[in-house]
Amino acid sequence: MTRKLRVGMVGGGGPGNFFGAPHRRAILMDNSAELTAGALRSDPAGAIASAKELFFTRGYGDWASMIAEEAKLPEDQRIDYVTIVTPNHAHFGPADAAARAGMGVLCEKPLTLTLDEALALRKTVKQHDTPFVVAYTYTAFPMVMMARELVHDGTLGEIRKCEAWYPQGWLASKIEAQGQQQASWRVDPARSGASGCGGDIGTHAYEFIKFVAGLRAVRVQARTKTFVEGRALDDDFTVLAELSNGAIGTIAASQVTIGAQNDNGFRIIGTKGTLEWSITDHNTLKHFEAGQPVRLFRLGAEYGYLPETVKPYVRVPSGHPEGFHEALANLHRCLEWTIRARRGETVPRACPLPGIDDGVEGMAFIAAAVESGREDGRWVAVKPLD
Amino acid sequence: MTRKLRVGMVGGGGPGNFFGAPHRRAILMDNSAELTAGALRSDPAGAIASAKELFFTRGYGDWASMIAEEAKLPEDQRIDYVTIVTPNHAHFGPADAAARAGMGVLCEKPLTLTLDEALALRKTVKQHDTPFVVAYTYTAFPMVMMARELVHDGTLGEIRKCEAWYPQGWLASKIEAQGQQQASWRVDPARSGASGCGGDIGTHAYEFIKFVAGLRAVRVQARTKTFVEGRALDDDFTVLAELSNGAIGTIAASQVTIGAQNDNGFRIIGTKGTLEWSITDHNTLKHFEAGQPVRLFRLGAEYGYLPETVKPYVRVPSGHPEGFHEALANLHRCLEWTIRARRGETVPRACPLPGIDDGVEGMAFIAAAVESGREDGRWVAVKPLD
Amino acid sequence: MTRKLRVGMVGGGGPGNFFGAPHRRAILMDNSAELTAGALRSDPAGAIASAKELFFTRGYGDWASMIAEEAKLPEDQRIDYVTIVTPNHAHFGPADAAARAGMGVLCEKPLTLTLDEALALRKTVKQHDTPFVVAYTYTAFPMVMMARELVHDGTLGEIRKCEAWYPQGWLASKIEAQGQQQASWRVDPARSGASGCGGDIGTHAYEFIKFVAGLRAVRVQARTKTFVEGRALDDDFTVLAELSNGAIGTIAASQVTIGAQNDNGFRIIGTKGTLEWSITDHNTLKHFEAGQPVRLFRLGAEYGYLPETVKPYVRVPSGHPEGFHEALANLHRCLEWTIRARRGETVPRACPLPGIDDGVEGMAFIAAAVESGREDGRWVAVKPLD
Amino acid sequence: MTRKLRVGMVGGGGPGNFFGAPHRRAILMDNSAELTAGALRSDPAGAIASAKELFFTRGYGDWASMIAEEAKLPEDQRIDYVTIVTPNHAHFGPADAAARAGMGVLCEKPLTLTLDEALALRKTVKQHDTPFVVAYTYTAFPMVMMARELVHDGTLGEIRKCEAWYPQGWLASKIEAQGQQQASWRVDPARSGASGCGGDIGTHAYEFIKFVAGLRAVRVQARTKTFVEGRALDDDFTVLAELSNGAIGTIAASQVTIGAQNDNGFRIIGTKGTLEWSITDHNTLKHFEAGQPVRLFRLGAEYGYLPETVKPYVRVPSGHPEGFHEALANLHRCLEWTIRARRGETVPRACPLPGIDDGVEGMAFIAAAVESGREDGRWVAVKPLD
Repeated sequence: MTRKLRVGMVGGGGPGNFFGAPHRRAILMDNSAELTAGALRSDPAGAIASAKELFFTRGYGDWASMIAEEAKLPEDQRIDYVTIVTPNHAHFGPADAAARAGMGVLCEKPLTLTLDEALALRKTVKQHDTPFVVAYTYTAFPMVMMARELVHDGTLGEIRKCEAWYPQGWLASKIEAQGQQQASWRVDPARSGASGCGGDIGTHAYEFIKFVAGLRAVRVQARTKTFVEGRALDDDFTVLAELSNGAIGTIAASQVTIGAQNDNGFRIIGTKGTLEWSITDHNTLKHFEAGQPVRLFRLGAEYGYLPETVKPYVRVPSGHPEGFHEALANLHRCLEWTIRARRGETVPRACPLPGIDDGVEGMAFIAAAVESGREDGRWVAVKPLD
Repeated sequence: MTRKLRVGMVGGGGPGNFFGAPHRRAILMDNSAELTAGALRSDPAGAIASAKELFFTRGYGDWASMIAEEAKLPEDQRIDYVTIVTPNHAHFGPADAAARAGMGVLCEKPLTLTLDEALALRKTVKQHDTPFVVAYTYTAFPMVMMARELVHDGTLGEIRKCEAWYPQGWLASKIEAQGQQQASWRVDPARSGASGCGGDIGTHAYEFIKFVAGLRAVRVQARTKTFVEGRALDDDFTVLAELSNGAIGTIAASQVTIGAQNDNGFRIIGTKGTLEWSITDHNTLKHFEAGQPVRLFRLGAEYGYLPETVKPYVRVPSGHPEGFHEALANLHRCLEWTIRARRGETVPRACPLPGIDDGVEGMAFIAAAVESGREDGRWVAVKPLD
Repeated sequence: MTRKLRVGMVGGGGPGNFFGAPHRRAILMDNSAELTAGALRSDPAGAIASAKELFFTRGYGDWASMIAEEAKLPEDQRIDYVTIVTPNHAHFGPADAAARAGMGVLCEKPLTLTLDEALALRKTVKQHDTPFVVAYTYTAFPMVMMARELVHDGTLGEIRKCEAWYPQGWLASKIEAQGQQQASWRVDPARSGASGCGGDIGTHAYEFIKFVAGLRAVRVQARTKTFVEGRALDDDFTVLAELSNGAIGTIAASQVTIGAQNDNGFRIIGTKGTLEWSITDHNTLKHFEAGQPVRLFRLGAEYGYLPETVKPYVRVPSGHPEGFHEALANLHRCLEWTIRARRGETVPRACPLPGIDDGVEGMAFIAAAVESGREDGRWVAVKPLD
Repeated sequence: MTRKLRVGMVGGGGPGNFFGAPHRRAILMDNSAELTAGALRSDPAGAIASAKELFFTRGYGDWASMIAEEAKLPEDQRIDYVTIVTPNHAHFGPADAAARAGMGVLCEKPLTLTLDEALALRKTVKQHDTPFVVAYTYTAFPMVMMARELVHDGTLGEIRKCEAWYPQGWLASKIEAQGQQQASWRVDPARSGASGCGGDIGTHAYEFIKFVAGLRAVRVQARTKTFVEGRALDDDFTVLAELSNGAIGTIAASQVTIGAQNDNGFRIIGTKGTLEWSITDHNTLKHFEAGQPVRLFRLGAEYGYLPETVKPYVRVPSGHPEGFHEALANLHRCLEWTIRARRGETVPRACPLPGIDDGVEGMAFIAAAVESGREDGRWVAVKPLD
């Protein structure tokens, strides 16, 4: 590794912000990248002050000037990729611009505000062959990657059923009315998109099915519901899907399940066995086969059973619990290695993490579910990638 | 308690039978009832031999003669109630006859082969005011009853969502082809009814919603699926329900989830909190409130927090794990106390367990789900009790 | 099985009694034995009334007359074995008399009040070749038996360390002062013996080491402590043992660990792997090998991996939780099969459960620990069996 | 925060090294400190190369020159504190020198090679009033800190018993013979000290008692054992302690418990309740009170029940699992805030983490345990701080 990568960040500054700090930790975690450029808030003065306060090398008043200015810098100074941690309505702009400027992109999910935006962005990304990662953070837990590898190796046989879930409880009452910043934009269609619960977390659950089982939804029946009075978007999201191989998929997300934290997970059921994972015990992967003892795979770089493509994402020996920040750092790691490989550096052969296509498919899924929900649960086809 | 109750049993004998022995254990558990009359197998000679071998006081060749003969005996000799542990197609006959003969009935679930039978049976039972318990065994775990009492006390506020599940894996391959007796009748429409997975275990899951939350399904969308080739009935059963108060209900049952044993459970979500229970940790009930520590209620007769109506169903101090047989014995206990109370004996004020109405509602739910499943998941209304 | 066994019971009647009812359930559980004779309370009139009320065939005023009278009955009427569920000081008398009368004995633990009594009883039992089971109930959970079989098969290699524990919290305050019956006799040296916590539950923990690992304590260092003021016996019991093969043993029992219910368990550590079991998840046995996935063995008669000698103790298919009563019933089952085998009946080849030698070794262990505790933890040799 | 702190690191470079990378992640995690100076390996050329490769601002050939040279730099350039991640024999030198040079110190545990070294270091640290943190990393998990605060608030009443444990399995066979670097120095008395297992992990377990319960060992009985043939130090370490208030302490550590990862934890038992924590579920703290539901406190910055002094150590909302790196970062955070506070910066009022006294007490505990172990477990007094 000859030099650290230079990272730009859009959003993620200011009080009450949540995701900026975790992404900064993720960028810094492996001592292989630095906080170079920041357009961290929507007001220009605040953005510049924030960048200074957070020790970014260069601060900008908005993302447009950041990308434009950086693009003009000599190659040995300008940023290598942009991390986008704004609300959903502000993903498309910087992502599209960064791609056009030849920079890599790590974008928060859901990919964009609308499916149309997503399709447009995909076109740009394909044209520019942009290194692109979508922050489906939970796919970046090593035992989720291991599940994927086991499915791909045929360990489960043919997949019959995929269950994915993501219950939360934090929006069970109307906290947006009290000015909670994280809640405010998530329940606002103009900033969040067509679905509240589905877009914010249902899409994470759906990604488990795509990432681990390698299947996609062909059509869906959805029950979207707003339990908290006066809220404009759904806060509960229950979907039945027919998957691409005919398997059953269920995607259950909720923001009103009091007591649930971020309890996402999945169960993939095949003709030869079942795999189960939950973030509540995220360093363990359960494997069931008929008539056999249950097997628990556990995180730990020293375990011979960990797939070679997963090991590069594990940082410490077994028993030292890794968690959310490491998963986030794995997203950055994946993008970083893609960028370094293009420059001829040697990087590990590592499990690929979700990219632009996954982002678009997530948007298509949400769009179909919203439509089905609006029409009392009739089957709606999910638009495939062309 | 002046004397033991006298119990008759229909079915439950012969090699390969499963449920006869647990019910006999349940009847004998509290030393308050005895195995008096048995018509334990479908062939008369075998039935009589079986009764003798199992130490029943009197053996009969078939249930019709058992009920007829017992009814002729003087009141101080004849059986007080009949336990029916036959396959589903053989529930209606003995249940109806026993009710007409003035005996109590404890009947396995689902109540009958068809909804029509169920409605007819209900008519008889109402006419004769028959003490009647349906073996929704999992409602008879004390912490499930406690959940019910907490919901009824308003602990959860208004109910928003009820999730119930019952995955199993034992039918993931075609074991009925190898003559496994329990499998054989369960996959046979003539003996099992219109639904395999739904009737056998989906109905258990649905009962959690009715019993604990006090809600019923108004209409359902169902995905019923037969994964194992050549099987005549569904082995997977996924239902979305609109509940009587508008709440969302999900009922997920499966017989192909390799690794799942009998992992039923539920989560009831209200405006003020959530209750969660699973048979995998059945002596614990979890209670969540916003911003509060999670509370775990644990089984134990000595705990002051156990509702008074539940305590009579608890047999040992905390830490001595009770399980399936005790739950089954609680069903018999409930019926026994009903019968004793009618005779003027003093019995505890105890949580009522599922009766004839619950049995009928279970059948109506299955009927609606089967219809919806057949019609690609369109909404189908669930016939209410009149 | 040509007839039910006839069982006599000593103790176990009267209000506030705990262990009588569970043993009656255990005796009746498999429909293979009946409650024939009872001397259930210490006052003769109460004893006879209690036997009647509990539907025993014959009631007696005291155990001496019960054993004497039963012994005079013809062989086809008299009791086959005696179950002793009195406080510790009242074990020796009926056990010794029953053995001399040619009856089998199932005796609660610890075996007797003193080691001398235990040695004397052993002599009688050996002379009369008495079928004898000591109620180390936790050894009778099937997955504990399975652990034993795995150790005996060499699965763990050479044993290095055995950890056994049994914390409870119910005596954390002076409930005996409020007349709690179970507490009262357990803290009274005249009825309980030289150790309170050690005798009541430390001995259960020690038995795990003997039963599962097949090792015994050669010498011990003990910390016995009385935390509750004014209590005459220890309510906390911490022992370090040198085991017969040089392995380390730790036995930790407590009655003041608030929150612990009956949370006994063990971990057996060998050169090739580790086995772990806890009653809090008693239907699961954990097996660890270096560098391998953890394996969870689960209860279920249908599992091919369950040892043949353990299967006869399993009553239901996987997922139907068994518990305390079934374990207790396994103790009776073991004794029953021993008795039936002697009569020429065919019985399963089943894992042997603790007998008279185990009872004596438990008493020797307690005696050594009490002496060490009194002498500030110096090493004290544990008297071996001759 | 006007500027980042400047950190020096001693050790932690080179292939096979474990602890360097985690500490670098911890230093960088909060974007408040930078890797300024490094003396990362024992060979000078390698050390300088390593510092360059790892993007340290300045590399040095050895710690002595690093501290000497840095001390000469102007205050606005030189390092603020030194992180020492060498094997135990190489703690004293750089720690002592850094303290004398007026720098802060974060030192790995155990504090030094010998108790004498520890006492000498303490003298220096006291003289220079050095900001000092010892890396008892597990005390820096927020729920461990919360346990401490609850104990200090009197929630448990008077403490009766403290149990602490730390089993591992990685040294169950002689991996040091295969050149495993982490194993090699840990089993070498010249680099590790008088105890292998006790010094490496027993001291972590003991610190739970000191940190959470605020008690220390007055005297100990120890069983130290070397199971793997040809190993020079103990690989199993079992200690009974009499604590400063008369309570019982047990400290059980092992390196041969196959299957255990780093499964440390504790249970603190008082007259009013019990607290229990284990790293295997480290974001949860269990609280038991007699007759009450169990309470589970869970990590999450938004929970009102989290003590004010603990909140500054929590980085993300509930449900985003934090782990080992965050705990390590909390150690650095504690030291950083101490240093910043001395400079007049405003810092949070935060739970203090282990310092020089705790390091010395850990060494005194090990010394006493080693002596007791050598003398067959006789009681040995633990030298108190003066």
